[in-house]
Amino acid sequence: MSQLLKVQNFSVSTDGYGAGEGQSLERPFGHADPRQMAGWMFATASFPGRPGPGGTRGLDDHLVRDFHHGIGAEIMGANKFSPHRGPWTERDVERWQGWWGDEPPFHTPVFVMTHHLRPSFTLSDTTFHFTDAPPAAVAEQAKAAAGGLDVRLGGGAQSIRSFLEADLVDELHVAVVPLELGAGTRLWTSAEDLDDRFHREVVPSPSGVVHHLLWRR
Amino acid sequence: MSQLLKVQNFSVSTDGYGAGEGQSLERPFGHADPRQMAGWMFATASFPGRPGPGGTRGLDDHLVRDFHHGIGAEIMGANKFSPHRGPWTERDVERWQGWWGDEPPFHTPVFVMTHHLRPSFTLSDTTFHFTDAPPAAVAEQAKAAAGGLDVRLGGGAQSIRSFLEADLVDELHVAVVPLELGAGTRLWTSAEDLDDRFHREVVPSPSGVVHHLLWRR
Repeated sequence: MSQLLKVQNFSVSTDGYGAGEGQSLERPFGHADPRQMAGWMFATASFPGRPGPGGTRGLDDHLVRDFHHGIGAEIMGANKFSPHRGPWTERDVERWQGWWGDEPPFHTPVFVMTHHLRPSFTLSDTTFHFTDAPPAAVAEQAKAAAGGLDVRLGGGAQSIRSFLEADLVDELHVAVVPLELGAGTRLWTSAEDLDDRFHREVVPSPSGVVHHLLWRR
Repeated sequence: MSQLLKVQNFSVSTDGYGAGEGQSLERPFGHADPRQMAGWMFATASFPGRPGPGGTRGLDDHLVRDFHHGIGAEIMGANKFSPHRGPWTERDVERWQGWWGDEPPFHTPVFVMTHHLRPSFTLSDTTFHFTDAPPAAVAEQAKAAAGGLDVRLGGGAQSIRSFLEADLVDELHVAVVPLELGAGTRLWTSAEDLDDRFHREVVPSPSGVVHHLLWRR
């Protein structure tokens, strides 16, 4: 197992949703509050978007630190890339280059899975490619582009599920946040869903989130 | 705080000892069994000395992964470098180049604190330097050599204590292993000893060790 396909720092609600309903430009996580879903990461010293020094250096931080470590490519679903639905017009393409500004936190090739293709583009040291290939083919493309390093599967929940169904995921770190969403995009009904195929450690953090660390049996 | 001085993956017994009594070539941890002290690391996929694939990818592994991450130099005490006591003869110097064989796991400059100096030497991409300077001066040397990266303080317990006394440590990860030693080189009487100066999270691992994650207040 030389190159792994990994899910890192993926937050879900206690009822297993990775995002709420009704994603839009103003509400990238739908009716879920991003500060509630991802706040545990924002508080850490190693969060890539941290504006200045400070931040915690405990368990949450040790997990967030792993984000860039040995990663050579990212795969993400269309809804992680944008709230846009349907085909891209030329004007859409000009206006939308992801949520992350001029310095996306990936620093690698990124493969966006979508039925609505558009040309690749580069922001700083991140290049976004668009592909409508199935998970196994995208995993292969991403591994080839990763220069021997691991591949991060960035989400959302629907993309992770499709990779799990195709048995392409080697390792997952899922953070369960103390929040019920009731609806949205679901990763799992229960964390135990994956116990037949993955080892799983459950590690409660002092911050209130519960980390689930899974790796292939 | 651009460059940190960090203690990583340092194992102590429940009564706070980093090593037992009577270190020798055959017993690098004195009367403490290295497999009991460091076994939690040996089991992980990311342990630098792992002979082949496999290993766990849970909490212990996520902490061990951090070992090389952003580290540009290591500082260690004389007893971590060797069981040798007293001045080095030319023959000793020829015969002893550390415990780690031809490929030491550091891959950076290493500063060995000792009253018994000997010439610097290089094995693969690790260069060992020997210094009798006090902790503050060694920390400065190591930071200058680290190329902007962090510095690892590798131990043993006595060296870590001397750096703590001089208030030079920014972060510590200490793994308390379920084993009482009764005697040896002590890191602390109780983990609470440092609570006036450090935040501390206590994270029990499914493996049986309890991780203490400390960072400066």
